[in-house]
Amino acid sequence: MPKVVLAYSGGLDTSVILRWLKEEYGYEVIAFAADLGQGPDELKGLEEKALATGASSVYIQDLRKTFLEEYVFPMLRSGALYERKYLLGTSIARPLIARGMVQVALKEGAEAVAHGATGKGNDQVRFEVTVKALAPELKIIAPWRIWEIRSRKDAIDYARRYDIPVPVTVEKPYSMDRNIWHISYEGGILEDPHQEPPEDMFLLTRSPAQAPDEPAVVEISFEKGVPVALNGTAMDSVSLLNTLNEIAGENAVGRVDLVENRLVGMKSRGVYETPGGTLLYFAHRELEQLTLDRETMRFKEAVAIKYGEIVYYGLWYSPLRRALDAFIDSTQEKVTGDIELKLYRGNITISGRRSPYSLYHTGLATFEEGELYDQKDAGGFINLFGLPLQVEALLRGTWKSELES
Amino acid sequence: MPKVVLAYSGGLDTSVILRWLKEEYGYEVIAFAADLGQGPDELKGLEEKALATGASSVYIQDLRKTFLEEYVFPMLRSGALYERKYLLGTSIARPLIARGMVQVALKEGAEAVAHGATGKGNDQVRFEVTVKALAPELKIIAPWRIWEIRSRKDAIDYARRYDIPVPVTVEKPYSMDRNIWHISYEGGILEDPHQEPPEDMFLLTRSPAQAPDEPAVVEISFEKGVPVALNGTAMDSVSLLNTLNEIAGENAVGRVDLVENRLVGMKSRGVYETPGGTLLYFAHRELEQLTLDRETMRFKEAVAIKYGEIVYYGLWYSPLRRALDAFIDSTQEKVTGDIELKLYRGNITISGRRSPYSLYHTGLATFEEGELYDQKDAGGFINLFGLPLQVEALLRGTWKSELES
Amino acid sequence: MPKVVLAYSGGLDTSVILRWLKEEYGYEVIAFAADLGQGPDELKGLEEKALATGASSVYIQDLRKTFLEEYVFPMLRSGALYERKYLLGTSIARPLIARGMVQVALKEGAEAVAHGATGKGNDQVRFEVTVKALAPELKIIAPWRIWEIRSRKDAIDYARRYDIPVPVTVEKPYSMDRNIWHISYEGGILEDPHQEPPEDMFLLTRSPAQAPDEPAVVEISFEKGVPVALNGTAMDSVSLLNTLNEIAGENAVGRVDLVENRLVGMKSRGVYETPGGTLLYFAHRELEQLTLDRETMRFKEAVAIKYGEIVYYGLWYSPLRRALDAFIDSTQEKVTGDIELKLYRGNITISGRRSPYSLYHTGLATFEEGELYDQKDAGGFINLFGLPLQVEALLRGTWKSELES
Amino acid sequence: MPKVVLAYSGGLDTSVILRWLKEEYGYEVIAFAADLGQGPDELKGLEEKALATGASSVYIQDLRKTFLEEYVFPMLRSGALYERKYLLGTSIARPLIARGMVQVALKEGAEAVAHGATGKGNDQVRFEVTVKALAPELKIIAPWRIWEIRSRKDAIDYARRYDIPVPVTVEKPYSMDRNIWHISYEGGILEDPHQEPPEDMFLLTRSPAQAPDEPAVVEISFEKGVPVALNGTAMDSVSLLNTLNEIAGENAVGRVDLVENRLVGMKSRGVYETPGGTLLYFAHRELEQLTLDRETMRFKEAVAIKYGEIVYYGLWYSPLRRALDAFIDSTQEKVTGDIELKLYRGNITISGRRSPYSLYHTGLATFEEGELYDQKDAGGFINLFGLPLQVEALLRGTWKSELES
Repeated sequence: MPKVVLAYSGGLDTSVILRWLKEEYGYEVIAFAADLGQGPDELKGLEEKALATGASSVYIQDLRKTFLEEYVFPMLRSGALYERKYLLGTSIARPLIARGMVQVALKEGAEAVAHGATGKGNDQVRFEVTVKALAPELKIIAPWRIWEIRSRKDAIDYARRYDIPVPVTVEKPYSMDRNIWHISYEGGILEDPHQEPPEDMFLLTRSPAQAPDEPAVVEISFEKGVPVALNGTAMDSVSLLNTLNEIAGENAVGRVDLVENRLVGMKSRGVYETPGGTLLYFAHRELEQLTLDRETMRFKEAVAIKYGEIVYYGLWYSPLRRALDAFIDSTQEKVTGDIELKLYRGNITISGRRSPYSLYHTGLATFEEGELYDQKDAGGFINLFGLPLQVEALLRGTWKSELES
Repeated sequence: MPKVVLAYSGGLDTSVILRWLKEEYGYEVIAFAADLGQGPDELKGLEEKALATGASSVYIQDLRKTFLEEYVFPMLRSGALYERKYLLGTSIARPLIARGMVQVALKEGAEAVAHGATGKGNDQVRFEVTVKALAPELKIIAPWRIWEIRSRKDAIDYARRYDIPVPVTVEKPYSMDRNIWHISYEGGILEDPHQEPPEDMFLLTRSPAQAPDEPAVVEISFEKGVPVALNGTAMDSVSLLNTLNEIAGENAVGRVDLVENRLVGMKSRGVYETPGGTLLYFAHRELEQLTLDRETMRFKEAVAIKYGEIVYYGLWYSPLRRALDAFIDSTQEKVTGDIELKLYRGNITISGRRSPYSLYHTGLATFEEGELYDQKDAGGFINLFGLPLQVEALLRGTWKSELES
Repeated sequence: MPKVVLAYSGGLDTSVILRWLKEEYGYEVIAFAADLGQGPDELKGLEEKALATGASSVYIQDLRKTFLEEYVFPMLRSGALYERKYLLGTSIARPLIARGMVQVALKEGAEAVAHGATGKGNDQVRFEVTVKALAPELKIIAPWRIWEIRSRKDAIDYARRYDIPVPVTVEKPYSMDRNIWHISYEGGILEDPHQEPPEDMFLLTRSPAQAPDEPAVVEISFEKGVPVALNGTAMDSVSLLNTLNEIAGENAVGRVDLVENRLVGMKSRGVYETPGGTLLYFAHRELEQLTLDRETMRFKEAVAIKYGEIVYYGLWYSPLRRALDAFIDSTQEKVTGDIELKLYRGNITISGRRSPYSLYHTGLATFEEGELYDQKDAGGFINLFGLPLQVEALLRGTWKSELES
Repeated sequence: MPKVVLAYSGGLDTSVILRWLKEEYGYEVIAFAADLGQGPDELKGLEEKALATGASSVYIQDLRKTFLEEYVFPMLRSGALYERKYLLGTSIARPLIARGMVQVALKEGAEAVAHGATGKGNDQVRFEVTVKALAPELKIIAPWRIWEIRSRKDAIDYARRYDIPVPVTVEKPYSMDRNIWHISYEGGILEDPHQEPPEDMFLLTRSPAQAPDEPAVVEISFEKGVPVALNGTAMDSVSLLNTLNEIAGENAVGRVDLVENRLVGMKSRGVYETPGGTLLYFAHRELEQLTLDRETMRFKEAVAIKYGEIVYYGLWYSPLRRALDAFIDSTQEKVTGDIELKLYRGNITISGRRSPYSLYHTGLATFEEGELYDQKDAGGFINLFGLPLQVEALLRGTWKSELES
């Protein structure tokens, strides 16, 4: 019997897909789940459930450390945001999940992989493009684009027909994706962009009103752009992020509400919680302000925009991402130091910045004279800096009309 | 007697400069002050003071409306920030003040203009480059770069010698620049980037802890990217900004603390309050997310970075700024609509977004089928979108090593 | 009977499509052909042929002037090239042809448009995206993606079956697309990128060896970036381009041979002749060097890359193209003047440049002193310009290892 | 006696400077000359001349290999041009010469370096910024900005006064800079941009009319973007470039005539000969077209513009250049292969392209079906690719007015 590896979550959809792959194609189905920090409840009993639903075998891999260190932190160092706000928590997880599926597929000699992403979203692209890049010969099956099931009711009917256990939990009026970096919410009641998200939706962060009335202080230490310690204590990546999530969530930091442009051509509305990640981005930027020179920072802003697009579009395994990482690596050489943040009811303020490689030179910044800077030089600088505009004014009188108003 | 126009604030520095220009060059000094919303105290008695100090005449112009409509709002529409945080409140004021000086100089037949900006800052560049662009034949005098006065004490001594009234106010341990858009603070105790700014420094915004415990709601309406109404009431630009400053300041919105790269080559630390402006930027971006297509938004991100640089560098009167404005005008054609914001102790959340030109299409965004979108199309899209990576994988096996880890 | 408008060329393919649309869908077929300067032979007898093949009516529109003035010249002013070499002659024609089809479709009340572009090329995208942007409700039929005809032999068989006249001309071992701006060649014997194109393929240009041994001189005059005169004689756009094509072609100017990246995901090889266009691009750039300031030029280089992508991808009717045009319009305000070129066996050299708005200031460029430029200013300029690197060297000793080698 | 290291060429200017440094400052002057391939005549007798003029010691270093391999080839790989035409031959030499001076200065314990660049050009900036980056404590002396000598006549007078040998060669009516990569010409009779350069000025290239009437063929092989062999024969960098210069020069390849924007704020006119370099750029680009994917190529175009600016501005020893090099290194991983060029009277055509890493896939490029590409996919691709424009058209009718014309 040919084999297929299915990205399996234990929910209704992938359970139905699991069975459908057997019925429709006669596949032996290998269930694959990556633990990216979606929470213990999600993974509990997953193996049993998969086998009960008909899987021939089940792989559950704890990839949290890999996720943070090989995917999230490089992205953090790039400064990438999608459309200026989204910290890319779902996007960045997809290539890793797909890589895991491909590894299992190759090991098991499967001829195909399958996923439960719908035909309107970004995730289908991210999964499939990754598979194409890593194992171009593998077949990819995306049931939502081809089967007859059209709704949750159809899926439940299908599940009942095949004795697949249907989760008893009340379905939420939106869909969620969770990992150690973030939770995303979209669809359902969130589809009206004029409607606020309900307060009880948020799982990782308190609201500012419910947060403590005392500020919390946290110092994040980076080495070459990678967070390595909190409050002076070195931590492994998973602990560090869990701790930051707790502090930031408690203090109401990390919510984003965004109308965004999907890769597949339409606008959609997403709401995100990225508590620890928000602190990391904030602190990392502050440290860059201290340690990067102006021209590098400026070019890196353009790199960050492109990097965010690459991650959002699922192009992780592309030559351009690798080349941008080489650029970023070079820029992060001296992004080492400590940023102290004060958190209070959703606000982040900087209470300290320190780096052995700081380019901030107190003597220069003050308005007093020093040996490095002769104020008279500024006159020469301005004369040359302004020369093109002056010449244009002399030769063309470009802005004369401005003087009349 | 030849004439000079001096940008005069009534403070110690420009008072001393006023007299120094007479003593040093034998100039007849015309004092010029622009009311950009720096507050009534700043302007009170300015004329008398200038005349008492030796000015031959005084121009005080209320340019608040011009400032907002011809300088600030175009910048707002561009989305420009400097180094991702600074809303450019000081930078954007400089070309207007310089233009005012030049207009007076031409009217009065002055041969020179003078300003009190120091030789280490950005403002000297902004003033002088603007003068060069508008009236390349005018002489520019920057006393701080040439005279012997080196410190506040030197200035006070000079003032006493010439009976110039020395302000009795206690000098603040930092310097400030204020207009209707913002206040900036820098120098003095702020020069240590590891030191938090003192709470009592802030004049426009409460701290989150001191803000009311009830959220405030404000709806901002834009027409072609320009803010035109609050809570449904049309307002002139000055009233609109004053109102927004009050609401935002009351609710602790609008502080920024930044180590930034000055044009003249060093890093410096600035702290800024831009309460109303922060709301405007936030709301304008949200409206763009709703009304701009993806590719326009993406390119506009690059334009915003460049525009921010242009404003910060004082290149307002440059052909590139004008060409970028033409680009921006075109993008803002449909940036019309209402954004409702909820403010609470420093947090801004979106409680509503609405535009007659919204490109958000609910039918498309839902995960259900519709006539515009056939999910099967996504399969074809992904195949072509992923083709380059697939071909590379087939021909080169680029990422094979990724599968071993 | 429902109607369809077909982009009809009179060749075998679109003749077969014409009939196939009637047979397959029962459509009344309206043949549409745009005269873009593909040459008189192409259009001769087109109407009779279409009617004989079964068209219910035929539209042949001379759009050469529109093509040049509304499509080609804006592109020229943008400086757009695709992948640094291709002057976009086929790409830029597609939105205009599609617009013509849509106009006829709306006038005739047709429900669909059809084209003969294959499923592997860029043109299908350009045609269809334009139709979607202009008339989103129109159905689009692309027979090559759906019918059973797979080869030229299949098409001939089909033609014979329905008595469609098969062109007697010997088929060329590559495919061509021609208009007043260029000819493109691709496919067939050109598919091997290691193989030179045969000399007898080129229709518009002599080879350098066969060109005259005397240089030809031509002076091109631009007004706001638009070419308006040759050798001092004002000319309408069509005459101007025809004349330039002749001069350039005679002197072996305008061939390009390129492996390029198609939008649909693969690399392909194209060979192009754009004789007059090459002169226009060359001359326009020279004039910009004389009349644009440095910062505008630099940003415009990025705009040109994006513009080239937009044209190549068929996104002419997109908000971003329009916004970029607004930018470009502003930059071209002073791109007025005369560029004299000397052509000799494929070489273009500049024998003169002149503009009333030249920013070249002889006094400044010479190495002698003048009142505008004080060489001492350069010292100050360098000190500030180099300050960031100097500070980095002092604080970090970044490049010390460079001194050892 | 304190020491100074002078960049010494043996010409009138640096000879006078040598003596002036002794007279003015009492310096012991160490003459430094780098052999970058400026030709044997330039270096002949240099040591004797320097000592005769008063140098205490002389360093002449053959840096041709270093120049090509550590400076020129990285720039070649970046694709950098300045203002789309200039191959940066003078710019790229400056940081290496300055590095050599600094090395000697440190070795000799000199307190200063000096150069003969004028106060209006770019070279002063390039020299001095490099010195600041490498040895920020060194004093820099630029006599042309400070002394009283204003003209060639002044310099000759000074030389005579101090018995400095004045070169008997007739001075050329323009100035030149030569190295193994190029010759630049500027100033004098070239200052009128409406005037063609005289044919007898060119030293490295024949004119197209004087070139042989038979094409020459040369195959250039690259490894990771670096040229390593000609016509199948491996060559060291210096031989390779000398050979290419000869072939290209003989065949009239490599002249550029440009009005360019100097860093110091004015436009100037430069004429350049870069025969071998032109072939290398051309061939390298072709190889990239074959071996780089589209998105990497596109981003690299932006990198090339920035890289060109960095080199032109003398910012070689800047963190951004290093980070861009890391990006470029990554992109060049597979830029290995052979490009065959045919040269004929100034024309370069490609007669062959070959790479083991070619991404050109013949099966894909043909218009026939294959297993990798299903033409039906194109329909889905277009539908999603065009969706934003279609939605905009439906919701806004943006382009309706286009249909009326």
